[in-house]
Amino acid sequence: MTHPPLLGVLPPPLIARAVDAALAEDLGTCGDITTDATIPAGAVARATFGARKAGVVSGLEVAAAAFHALDRSIVFDALVGEGQQAVPGAVVARVAGPARALLTGERVALNFLSHMSGIATLTRRYVDAIGGTGARIADTRKTTPGLRAFEKYAVRCGGGTNHRSGLHDAILIKDNHIVAAGGVGPALAAARAAAGHMVKIEVEVGDLEELRAALAYPVDAVLLDNMAPPLLAEAVKIVGGRVLTEASGGVTLETVRAIAETGVDIISVGALTHSAPILDIGLDFEPVPAPTMVC
Amino acid sequence: MTHPPLLGVLPPPLIARAVDAALAEDLGTCGDITTDATIPAGAVARATFGARKAGVVSGLEVAAAAFHALDRSIVFDALVGEGQQAVPGAVVARVAGPARALLTGERVALNFLSHMSGIATLTRRYVDAIGGTGARIADTRKTTPGLRAFEKYAVRCGGGTNHRSGLHDAILIKDNHIVAAGGVGPALAAARAAAGHMVKIEVEVGDLEELRAALAYPVDAVLLDNMAPPLLAEAVKIVGGRVLTEASGGVTLETVRAIAETGVDIISVGALTHSAPILDIGLDFEPVPAPTMVC
Amino acid sequence: MTHPPLLGVLPPPLIARAVDAALAEDLGTCGDITTDATIPAGAVARATFGARKAGVVSGLEVAAAAFHALDRSIVFDALVGEGQQAVPGAVVARVAGPARALLTGERVALNFLSHMSGIATLTRRYVDAIGGTGARIADTRKTTPGLRAFEKYAVRCGGGTNHRSGLHDAILIKDNHIVAAGGVGPALAAARAAAGHMVKIEVEVGDLEELRAALAYPVDAVLLDNMAPPLLAEAVKIVGGRVLTEASGGVTLETVRAIAETGVDIISVGALTHSAPILDIGLDFEPVPAPTMVC
Amino acid sequence: MTHPPLLGVLPPPLIARAVDAALAEDLGTCGDITTDATIPAGAVARATFGARKAGVVSGLEVAAAAFHALDRSIVFDALVGEGQQAVPGAVVARVAGPARALLTGERVALNFLSHMSGIATLTRRYVDAIGGTGARIADTRKTTPGLRAFEKYAVRCGGGTNHRSGLHDAILIKDNHIVAAGGVGPALAAARAAAGHMVKIEVEVGDLEELRAALAYPVDAVLLDNMAPPLLAEAVKIVGGRVLTEASGGVTLETVRAIAETGVDIISVGALTHSAPILDIGLDFEPVPAPTMVC
Amino acid sequence: MTHPPLLGVLPPPLIARAVDAALAEDLGTCGDITTDATIPAGAVARATFGARKAGVVSGLEVAAAAFHALDRSIVFDALVGEGQQAVPGAVVARVAGPARALLTGERVALNFLSHMSGIATLTRRYVDAIGGTGARIADTRKTTPGLRAFEKYAVRCGGGTNHRSGLHDAILIKDNHIVAAGGVGPALAAARAAAGHMVKIEVEVGDLEELRAALAYPVDAVLLDNMAPPLLAEAVKIVGGRVLTEASGGVTLETVRAIAETGVDIISVGALTHSAPILDIGLDFEPVPAPTMVC
Amino acid sequence: MTHPPLLGVLPPPLIARAVDAALAEDLGTCGDITTDATIPAGAVARATFGARKAGVVSGLEVAAAAFHALDRSIVFDALVGEGQQAVPGAVVARVAGPARALLTGERVALNFLSHMSGIATLTRRYVDAIGGTGARIADTRKTTPGLRAFEKYAVRCGGGTNHRSGLHDAILIKDNHIVAAGGVGPALAAARAAAGHMVKIEVEVGDLEELRAALAYPVDAVLLDNMAPPLLAEAVKIVGGRVLTEASGGVTLETVRAIAETGVDIISVGALTHSAPILDIGLDFEPVPAPTMVC
Repeated sequence: MTHPPLLGVLPPPLIARAVDAALAEDLGTCGDITTDATIPAGAVARATFGARKAGVVSGLEVAAAAFHALDRSIVFDALVGEGQQAVPGAVVARVAGPARALLTGERVALNFLSHMSGIATLTRRYVDAIGGTGARIADTRKTTPGLRAFEKYAVRCGGGTNHRSGLHDAILIKDNHIVAAGGVGPALAAARAAAGHMVKIEVEVGDLEELRAALAYPVDAVLLDNMAPPLLAEAVKIVGGRVLTEASGGVTLETVRAIAETGVDIISVGALTHSAPILDIGLDFEPVPAPTMVC
Repeated sequence: MTHPPLLGVLPPPLIARAVDAALAEDLGTCGDITTDATIPAGAVARATFGARKAGVVSGLEVAAAAFHALDRSIVFDALVGEGQQAVPGAVVARVAGPARALLTGERVALNFLSHMSGIATLTRRYVDAIGGTGARIADTRKTTPGLRAFEKYAVRCGGGTNHRSGLHDAILIKDNHIVAAGGVGPALAAARAAAGHMVKIEVEVGDLEELRAALAYPVDAVLLDNMAPPLLAEAVKIVGGRVLTEASGGVTLETVRAIAETGVDIISVGALTHSAPILDIGLDFEPVPAPTMVC
Repeated sequence: MTHPPLLGVLPPPLIARAVDAALAEDLGTCGDITTDATIPAGAVARATFGARKAGVVSGLEVAAAAFHALDRSIVFDALVGEGQQAVPGAVVARVAGPARALLTGERVALNFLSHMSGIATLTRRYVDAIGGTGARIADTRKTTPGLRAFEKYAVRCGGGTNHRSGLHDAILIKDNHIVAAGGVGPALAAARAAAGHMVKIEVEVGDLEELRAALAYPVDAVLLDNMAPPLLAEAVKIVGGRVLTEASGGVTLETVRAIAETGVDIISVGALTHSAPILDIGLDFEPVPAPTMVC
Repeated sequence: MTHPPLLGVLPPPLIARAVDAALAEDLGTCGDITTDATIPAGAVARATFGARKAGVVSGLEVAAAAFHALDRSIVFDALVGEGQQAVPGAVVARVAGPARALLTGERVALNFLSHMSGIATLTRRYVDAIGGTGARIADTRKTTPGLRAFEKYAVRCGGGTNHRSGLHDAILIKDNHIVAAGGVGPALAAARAAAGHMVKIEVEVGDLEELRAALAYPVDAVLLDNMAPPLLAEAVKIVGGRVLTEASGGVTLETVRAIAETGVDIISVGALTHSAPILDIGLDFEPVPAPTMVC
Repeated sequence: MTHPPLLGVLPPPLIARAVDAALAEDLGTCGDITTDATIPAGAVARATFGARKAGVVSGLEVAAAAFHALDRSIVFDALVGEGQQAVPGAVVARVAGPARALLTGERVALNFLSHMSGIATLTRRYVDAIGGTGARIADTRKTTPGLRAFEKYAVRCGGGTNHRSGLHDAILIKDNHIVAAGGVGPALAAARAAAGHMVKIEVEVGDLEELRAALAYPVDAVLLDNMAPPLLAEAVKIVGGRVLTEASGGVTLETVRAIAETGVDIISVGALTHSAPILDIGLDFEPVPAPTMVC
Repeated sequence: MTHPPLLGVLPPPLIARAVDAALAEDLGTCGDITTDATIPAGAVARATFGARKAGVVSGLEVAAAAFHALDRSIVFDALVGEGQQAVPGAVVARVAGPARALLTGERVALNFLSHMSGIATLTRRYVDAIGGTGARIADTRKTTPGLRAFEKYAVRCGGGTNHRSGLHDAILIKDNHIVAAGGVGPALAAARAAAGHMVKIEVEVGDLEELRAALAYPVDAVLLDNMAPPLLAEAVKIVGGRVLTEASGGVTLETVRAIAETGVDIISVGALTHSAPILDIGLDFEPVPAPTMVC
């Protein structure tokens, strides 16, 4: 699969591990007892991944890996690129090979593909909703446990951008940190002293007073938490481009444009990863020939 | 945590492995650099899990395990039982212990709890929608990769019942299996011969002709796929209680009651696990005291 | 390898994990120090798997995987199919490739193949002993820790059928469950309410009174525990074909036919997996040429 | 558990990993659905491990770990020590704690305990059969995949001694190695040069000529392969105590004493680990009280 | 263990996994055969970790975990804090508990402690060498495979700061990236577009021309590669505080002060983690009493 | 890669696991964000591993595996054999394939190769320093946690020999064992009784009195701990070739020849693995063509 720069590449060992875990859930110790009992061992089949609804595709590489973990001879051809729109009825990919492995791998492949495409699709709706403003849609750490890499990749497929990966790669100072450290100044000083020079620091503020306090110190970004658009606009004005501004809290498809129009740089939306419905994608088999047709 | 029989117990090793994987995503190799920089090592804290919206709670044990993996001395008290309703604002659980570990484990605990409670809550809505009919709401294999055990447990917390766990523990014969085996009769014969005596067999049928063909053989259940309520009612009548009937396909909160009133035994709903939004639960800290307060 | 439907397919990730674990035991951190010291790196070899005694073959795919984990270029050809009889002296399979990898993988391949074939062979003896009766030989959960999937597959290779995979995929109510639940009726009601609709329920009974009590409720099977053939015959008569009957306890090759002739459907035999001696299979190398022969 | 020096200690992380794998087989993703449905969450129980036949006990620590992996509050008391004889009916251990965890862990605990005790028991029979001779009974690498540590420990419990752990910790030169290296001299020279100074070297010989050839070089032991007792005795005489002598091949309980009386130092027996039937041990519960007794 | 903010906390699951892997190397499948054979099971012992040379301590928590993985009852008391100087002969920690577990865990505990303290000690020498300048000593990605988290933590213990954790958490654009992207401008634009807003961007430059080209675009830091101090000083002057400056390449204890005095902000030193000799620390046992002393 | 007998083969599953762990450190969940953003997906590249200093090469197979884990199509050609000398500037290996995977895998490949080659190089210096004496240089258990197999292999590449792999494969009795066992005689008797016949026994002695006490019993080797050359020579004379002699403690490149000339058989040097600086090896890319050059 070819990925444009904005999407990046899911590390192959991550894909292998996630696919193995998902197959283990489905296969247990006995495997696919229905398919093994009814499909001749030598049968081959073809099938197409069809989008039942419009959406943005994400996860084809993971879907392919699910089949390859069962049988390396399966051929998987993507017809719609990662991050591209699929119209309803579009054939997203074609797959061909041993019928047993195709039927056995179907659900795992679809569970990844429809989950990731669902996130990409919802992200795209947010991105489209703020079209023309300078803001970007970002995800959060509110991801499904065990799937953060896949979900953050799906957000990129949808045109969004990634907030920090975890607690380990950027500093985000919240009220508890500030209180415990004895104020925003000491908290920032402590953070700056402890963090490497390649680590950015963001401070969460709840009102303009906290904002002004934070701006008195060197920070890279301010998270404007749960502010209504008018207040956000005022905050953006106070910041005056000195640091990045992020709006967060209560963002919906209805409110996101007004938020973007306040001039904030980043709007982070937990729902992208914690509440996106799947994109409905199905796998349509050309009928597997009856046994007289095989061998 | 005490579980009533209908909920069952999540195997402890499964919980440990899932929590470890989720913490690894968040901690990387550097851990929580914000908390480590700003919170004194000896500080202790208290916090409460609060339901922001009404819903059914599921996953408290997993949330507790997330904290215990970081610090075994943390005390976690559940105030609302698994599978019970929480009203908006309800305190679901209390947690107390070292402030650093509480802040570091917060997101992983919430990600499990809100995801699982979201599934339990959506399940309960379906269950309530068919109240008084004899039907039961079941999940499917359309689960989030890696979390099937947790999601199927959450469905039980919501009052639903579980369909098969995977491809390995029950037989579900679909059209491809039937064609490849040379008809529903040979398919069922092959399945019965191959499967152990404790394995149930279900056959998917798309119309009444297929239904009648399937009923000519010994099966345990029939999956009535994508039938409108009138057709479903006719199918149920044809079955006449001889085998279990399951309705599947296109089930929504709007259509589910009409489906249930056809007399089907089971209504399976993929959306329970593939498209449930989270239940919004937050962790509210009593402010961590400033350093002068801590030794 | 091609598997007839009754055998099913061992999930490839299960094979990979088990082979890796077995190789790790043998290779430690230094590998095969004898072979590495004495066999030239470029030497190639051929060898044949020969049955020393008559038996039923099982596990060729796992044996092949043991070699492939060391060197993907090794060619492994099975000459006797899975589940087929090998006469003494029969060549079961041929293997060719780098001499070092063949010598290093030999023991792991043989340990799987002879253990699994031993189980298949013992199973076949039980199956043959009841030939002509309608009964089937089933395994139990008394398997070697870590190898359940492989042993249950070997039982199928021997012509047996599988009882439940584990505690998770079927319900088997024993006396402790009945006492704790307050009687067989409450126990069955609780089980039925908690279990999904694709889960079968079996009840263990020790005498005819318990049998009659169990039959008053809907169950799928009754386990007739430790009953002598005359009592078994009476029990079968009482059941009258309404549910499956399983005989269990004290089954030996001497007693199994009398048990089968009582008309029970299933006879479960723990010894298939907990006490089967191996099938003696050896790997005979064509002598590895001396170094002057090997460039 | 206290281990006398000859038994050694099973490394705790090995026990934890093996128990986890075995529990995973039994619990799948749904756990023990029978117990969860019928046993009240708060019920407690007591049970005793009883030997149904006479034998040597091995694996109590692993059995205990199986329960502790499910519930750390379970109390496990061993009444018969590791490596000690249990008479039929003897209570080997007592266990008490939450009834659910006891019932759920029962089979995994028993599978380890009866498998390991079976090996210890068979080993003891061989050891007893050669009582009074100077020979020792040793195991081989013909172990059940994944359980080598446990089986070699069980052999020690039975009074046997361990041959090398794997290919990595000692050198055993067989005919293929000799041919490929260009003779026993070059093979031994290569082995001695490659191996560390703490690695012993044994050479397999099939007749007296090969024996004499091997003895011309410094070796630590000779494996006298498949020699009848008279030939063995002659070989032992030729060796004259210069190196260790090991008899191997076709050793049975019937032949072992005659072999031992030839004066060999070690008799290795593959059957100890590849064909030992289990020792029949059961877990007898005091009846779990009915729910009215448990509040 | 209590960690000051600058050190942070090694995630407990990381410690557990690393300790398990190290113990597995040492224990294999047979455990500590020397100790098990010679030390009575009930013997207890005490020992002290003594610094043989002066150095900075790091890794006490990991050393403690090595013992606790073998026996949770072992008591481990640190007498010198993480990141603190130990003089030659200083008692760094005391340990007491079952003699077998102490002897068995000794080497793994020492291997972690002496490796990590070696890195901390070397780091401190670099930090001391630039005392009074404004520069900070940073590590690189040239770490020992599998131990990056531990080594970067040890660098912090030594007073250094961490460069990025890996390829995933910050952008460092080198010449190949620039050429492939079509120039430093397109490379930076591509990086900025693809990276999240919390990701910093550094560009490597080899001369002043490249430096000036890079500064024409928004970057967070410039890596001044392999420049001699006079050139470095000029580069720092050109940058004029607009972005962070990092010197890299050929840094030794002899050259580091001159580099620091050029005014660069960061000096990165691969040798901290790829070539630090251990700090010599030993574990001195009070003699384990003879068996007559131990019941 | 072809290995001469003295080097042996690193077990492939060990390599795969170590490479995966190292890549996971570097890739996290987002992968190589710099490369993904700036290098076109279709770009290909070539690069050469160049030795910056003279040294002995070790680890090429592991370096190749690091690239293959990212992209199986990468071609890796070794030009200098394992265990061979590379002169400064020598091209050690060539690599070609997809530019992204080459850039992403570079650091992991180099970290293994330079670490292992560093150990091989230091070992060779010790080996060369004692040239012409009959002594051999051996490693110890003072290895970097998690890398023992790789480091002991590197020692062999450098011309050294391996001491025991771990606590599990040979017996080394030290003073604590002797005291606890009640003397060197009882300790040796206990060890001999507990150990298998393929396990060697070494006893550590600190002076000539202890040496003479040990020699009264059958042992395979004596470790002469921390003795100066004159004392060592006397000890060697006392031993008189009856058992292997090993010198240990305080060995440096300055002292090692004098030690070797005392006639000891083995000189073990912890520094080989705990304090070897890396061998400086770089990966030099032919510039990756600009995007206009690539499709």
